[in-house]
Amino acid sequence: MAPRGNLMDYRPDVAVLDCTMRDGGLVNDFFFTDEFVRKLYQADLAAGVDYMEVGYRASKDLFDPEKFGKWKFSTDEDIYSIVGDNNTDLKISIMADVGRCDFKRDIGERSNSPVDLVRIATYINTMPAAIEMIEHCTKMGYETTCNIMAISKAKESDIDAALDMLGRSPVGTFYLVDSYGSLYPEQIRHMALKYLDIADKYGKRVGMHAHNNQQLAFANTIDACAEGVSLLDASMNGMGRGSGNCMMEQIISFLKNPKFKLDPVVKFVQNEMIPLRESGLVWGYDTQHLLTGLLNVHPRAAIKYTKEGRKDCRNFYLELLDDD
Amino acid sequence: MAPRGNLMDYRPDVAVLDCTMRDGGLVNDFFFTDEFVRKLYQADLAAGVDYMEVGYRASKDLFDPEKFGKWKFSTDEDIYSIVGDNNTDLKISIMADVGRCDFKRDIGERSNSPVDLVRIATYINTMPAAIEMIEHCTKMGYETTCNIMAISKAKESDIDAALDMLGRSPVGTFYLVDSYGSLYPEQIRHMALKYLDIADKYGKRVGMHAHNNQQLAFANTIDACAEGVSLLDASMNGMGRGSGNCMMEQIISFLKNPKFKLDPVVKFVQNEMIPLRESGLVWGYDTQHLLTGLLNVHPRAAIKYTKEGRKDCRNFYLELLDDD
Repeated sequence: MAPRGNLMDYRPDVAVLDCTMRDGGLVNDFFFTDEFVRKLYQADLAAGVDYMEVGYRASKDLFDPEKFGKWKFSTDEDIYSIVGDNNTDLKISIMADVGRCDFKRDIGERSNSPVDLVRIATYINTMPAAIEMIEHCTKMGYETTCNIMAISKAKESDIDAALDMLGRSPVGTFYLVDSYGSLYPEQIRHMALKYLDIADKYGKRVGMHAHNNQQLAFANTIDACAEGVSLLDASMNGMGRGSGNCMMEQIISFLKNPKFKLDPVVKFVQNEMIPLRESGLVWGYDTQHLLTGLLNVHPRAAIKYTKEGRKDCRNFYLELLDDD
Repeated sequence: MAPRGNLMDYRPDVAVLDCTMRDGGLVNDFFFTDEFVRKLYQADLAAGVDYMEVGYRASKDLFDPEKFGKWKFSTDEDIYSIVGDNNTDLKISIMADVGRCDFKRDIGERSNSPVDLVRIATYINTMPAAIEMIEHCTKMGYETTCNIMAISKAKESDIDAALDMLGRSPVGTFYLVDSYGSLYPEQIRHMALKYLDIADKYGKRVGMHAHNNQQLAFANTIDACAEGVSLLDASMNGMGRGSGNCMMEQIISFLKNPKFKLDPVVKFVQNEMIPLRESGLVWGYDTQHLLTGLLNVHPRAAIKYTKEGRKDCRNFYLELLDDD
């Protein structure tokens, strides 16, 4: 299929979701200051970003609120305290993991909430539980997406079945998620067409969430976009677990819709993100994350390697091969 | 056109050129120790790399040998002192810039030289001078490539004319060069097909040399490869001017030809490249190089910004816009 759109013009259907606080929260256990969050909200507004994801809505029964910042739980009250009534074009998103969110208790009517979109993250073997959450959130009035994680480990036939289940559900958007940063652009283009094929059949939208293990997060995101994917995840300076995500500054500079402005993003990166790095938080491409990415495994070993300050990436490589 | 090859198998025509010393030499003015160069040679041999580029052969009349390391000049004697008779499958390459190399004096018979390949770098407005060099080097017995730089600033009609001149010349390989790191994969795929079309007509090979300003060096290299490009430049840990190049560890882990081995590359990165970074040499992706890349300008302003230790990337962005 020829690319949708071209590099001179823009597709008005393409929207951007800022996942700095949610995926980046995995780097600092969600301890963002209120000042940071307010400035991020202002930067996203000025940049023309479509959705700002403030964090997870995890269950306080499962995770100790003493051990995590408040954006692990993202209560309506905490969101209101930042965005007020949010009479803007910037929609607010939260993520809810299958099995880690008490959605019946913690996700109530949209009319009483500052949240617009609930993104439901699931592994492929818990699709029925994801669909139960989608149905609940839809009934409560929210937009929904379903983010099927770790598909690089899943069989194509299972992915087909899961997408068909989603097609028949009330979900708004299917997400193509490269959890381990292991997929090459050629594979992403192929997967994007598969997702789009089923999405088109059922009138859904497709999103892309990339990881940067092989420095392919931006390439995979824009290649998916060229195939027709239209909800693109990015984070400021790529902040996210391990090797991080597609960078907001990359994607905003790529998109040609005049509503997107790069200047507020560059300013935010300078004033907030570089200082976060200098404070000791670590994310982004490095050799250890390349190695977990190319071996298609969870980044946890690379994150541990980094935390331990190890520099023997050759031994690390041999250990990964041994685990395989 | 469907991709040539697939992700499970390999194309035996795909070769890798290590440009660590040549493009990386632009970071440290070519002051590599003999020990580093010997270890790099051993690592490339063990990794199955096809060509090792040791540096430029610049004219000592134009550049002061007191101010540069010896790999700015890469004399036959200096190369012999590292590789001896080089009875291996690893070929030796040098680069010669149009207007900066006294080729009639400094590039003699291949039978008296350890060099196998001369890569001739030119801007598009000096093609006749490049062809004169190609003819000379061919007559002396060398393999040749022609690397037309800064094509992101050139008109398609001029590129077509230059490729046709090269087609009719004795050059062996045309190089697709993204000097400013400004080209997106979609553009690279399009350009690769253009280059391949003319190359196929004249029985030539096509190469790819990428820069990492937008973190697209690896993606652009493998996408060009999938279209049929078969000589791929990479450098250890991406060492190269400004944002650097496609990383050897990325490309060797991607290619499926069993002759390529990742382990020696990871070991070299650990033992030699990380210490080089820790010694204060700077290369690789950062916001300032993203900005020059997306604005399609020479990285010199970003290199200066880095050297001055500036952290005001937002002002830098405004300055670049002002220069435009």
